[in-house]
Amino acid sequence: MNTNRRGATGLVVGIDIGGTKVQGVLLGPDDAVLGSVLLPTTRGVEGVVATAAKAVRALTDEAQSGRGGALIDVGIGVPGVVDPANGTVAHAVNLGFPAELTPLAQLLSEELDGARVKMENDLNVAALGAAHVVGGPVDLAFLGLGTGLAAGLLLDGRLRRGAFGAAGEIGHIQFVADGPMCACGQRGCLELYASGASLEARWPGPCDVPASAALFAAASAGDPAAIALRDEFARAVAAAVRILVLTTDVARVVLGGGVSELGAPLRDAVVRALEGPAAGSDFLASMRIGQRVHLAPRGVPLAAIGAALVGRAVER
Amino acid sequence: MNTNRRGATGLVVGIDIGGTKVQGVLLGPDDAVLGSVLLPTTRGVEGVVATAAKAVRALTDEAQSGRGGALIDVGIGVPGVVDPANGTVAHAVNLGFPAELTPLAQLLSEELDGARVKMENDLNVAALGAAHVVGGPVDLAFLGLGTGLAAGLLLDGRLRRGAFGAAGEIGHIQFVADGPMCACGQRGCLELYASGASLEARWPGPCDVPASAALFAAASAGDPAAIALRDEFARAVAAAVRILVLTTDVARVVLGGGVSELGAPLRDAVVRALEGPAAGSDFLASMRIGQRVHLAPRGVPLAAIGAALVGRAVER
Repeated sequence: MNTNRRGATGLVVGIDIGGTKVQGVLLGPDDAVLGSVLLPTTRGVEGVVATAAKAVRALTDEAQSGRGGALIDVGIGVPGVVDPANGTVAHAVNLGFPAELTPLAQLLSEELDGARVKMENDLNVAALGAAHVVGGPVDLAFLGLGTGLAAGLLLDGRLRRGAFGAAGEIGHIQFVADGPMCACGQRGCLELYASGASLEARWPGPCDVPASAALFAAASAGDPAAIALRDEFARAVAAAVRILVLTTDVARVVLGGGVSELGAPLRDAVVRALEGPAAGSDFLASMRIGQRVHLAPRGVPLAAIGAALVGRAVER
Repeated sequence: MNTNRRGATGLVVGIDIGGTKVQGVLLGPDDAVLGSVLLPTTRGVEGVVATAAKAVRALTDEAQSGRGGALIDVGIGVPGVVDPANGTVAHAVNLGFPAELTPLAQLLSEELDGARVKMENDLNVAALGAAHVVGGPVDLAFLGLGTGLAAGLLLDGRLRRGAFGAAGEIGHIQFVADGPMCACGQRGCLELYASGASLEARWPGPCDVPASAALFAAASAGDPAAIALRDEFARAVAAAVRILVLTTDVARVVLGGGVSELGAPLRDAVVRALEGPAAGSDFLASMRIGQRVHLAPRGVPLAAIGAALVGRAVER
């Protein structure tokens, strides 16, 4: 442990650990991105610790040696139920973790010679990163349209984690009564209609093109089946946005995750789906939900940047 | 204006202004309820100001004259979109207010010789009152089952008002696709299935018994139609609870409003409706949603108490 050398560099590393990729960034004292790295995830606790440590070293070896080996603080974002105070994670099924609590922050700290490691849920770091990068009001929901569907909530500038660390799990609100079975054991969950995985299942295309891109291209080309599925998908995403806004009245909903790489056509489809019902409802129209919908900026590692901000935070 | 005499008594009045009744309480320095009053609401801005002033005077005349006329601070709860900083309310349709902003706090203050008047949304004061009276974690949603369906959110001990002052408007989340028309202009809103007014419409009974009581009694007596409607109602309330918990992960959901006077049979029906889907879902079961459901204590004027706490607050 090198307590006296901690944080002295003004540098901080953020690592976003996903089921397939680990994205890391190095931020300077002014929060500028000084470096980034992308590695494939090795699943399981040992694999994740090794991959994360490799990403940290790739970003910091040069900076550390130029600063007399000073340790650089690290923040990580993890898909699961995170206890930031204890640095533990549960339910990280996408990483191949066991069901019980994993003290991931401590394990990574040990692997990194005692560097300070803070941990936060992956959607929460994405929300922090979005607030930082997008600017504007720090009241937003990051709606992750990836394998699953869930949100990170930054309300009045504070992360809303919830009593069980499960705030934002809107993917498992029922959307269609008696709909198909969800992996969670319920029927008709919103996630079955408004996630990237749902499109992969319902519009399988060439391996090298995401289903969302293939679907939207086919719809643009006039394929009636593609138009119908695109519009159903947009209605489901719109329902998720409406649930977030009517429940929390959040100022801004940022569409992120893999599907958001579609860009403007995604936002346009979702806003159209929001405006249909609002046209008949003064109440809904007064909520201006469509105007609250924004796209995550393309190519910016929001979650890794948010993780770095978590790593930088003084209160521990 | 008598600035130097303000707040000196340690007393505070809370007034909950509803569409049919105005409930007032006088709290002592230790927040004990020293007095209460219940008046019928006179609708319209003038009528509401007069009724609220009458309630305040009924509670404070004796205390004021015993304290040399010192002004007593007032907090009010109002059904509408409230701006607490400016003391204005909009969309207070149930009070017969005009569409534009009404400076209700100022109007009442003028009627009360310059007494300090703070204002908050009616569900927010109910949430504050519930947290105060129920005790326990100050992380809760107050789910108002009255004429409409909406919630007040106290997250991590802070009121969540939202960007438009509309947080908790879950009654207008769609519950049944292509369901009946809601007054808000959408179809199939949750409020059409999970409010007191929805039961009045669907189970009209004798004038002197609330529809909810008549329905639950008939269901207990074995009437199949009553059982079906009761269970549908409970499923809709359960859906509202699930939306609140999966979105905000709030520690506690307090069932309040007129329908909650049913007491334990209401809670039992809602918990049963929550446990059905949870039985098949490890995820839902792990959220322990049924255990988070509590009843507002019967006969306690939660909203008026919460309004008094708003009136007491130092920051203005």
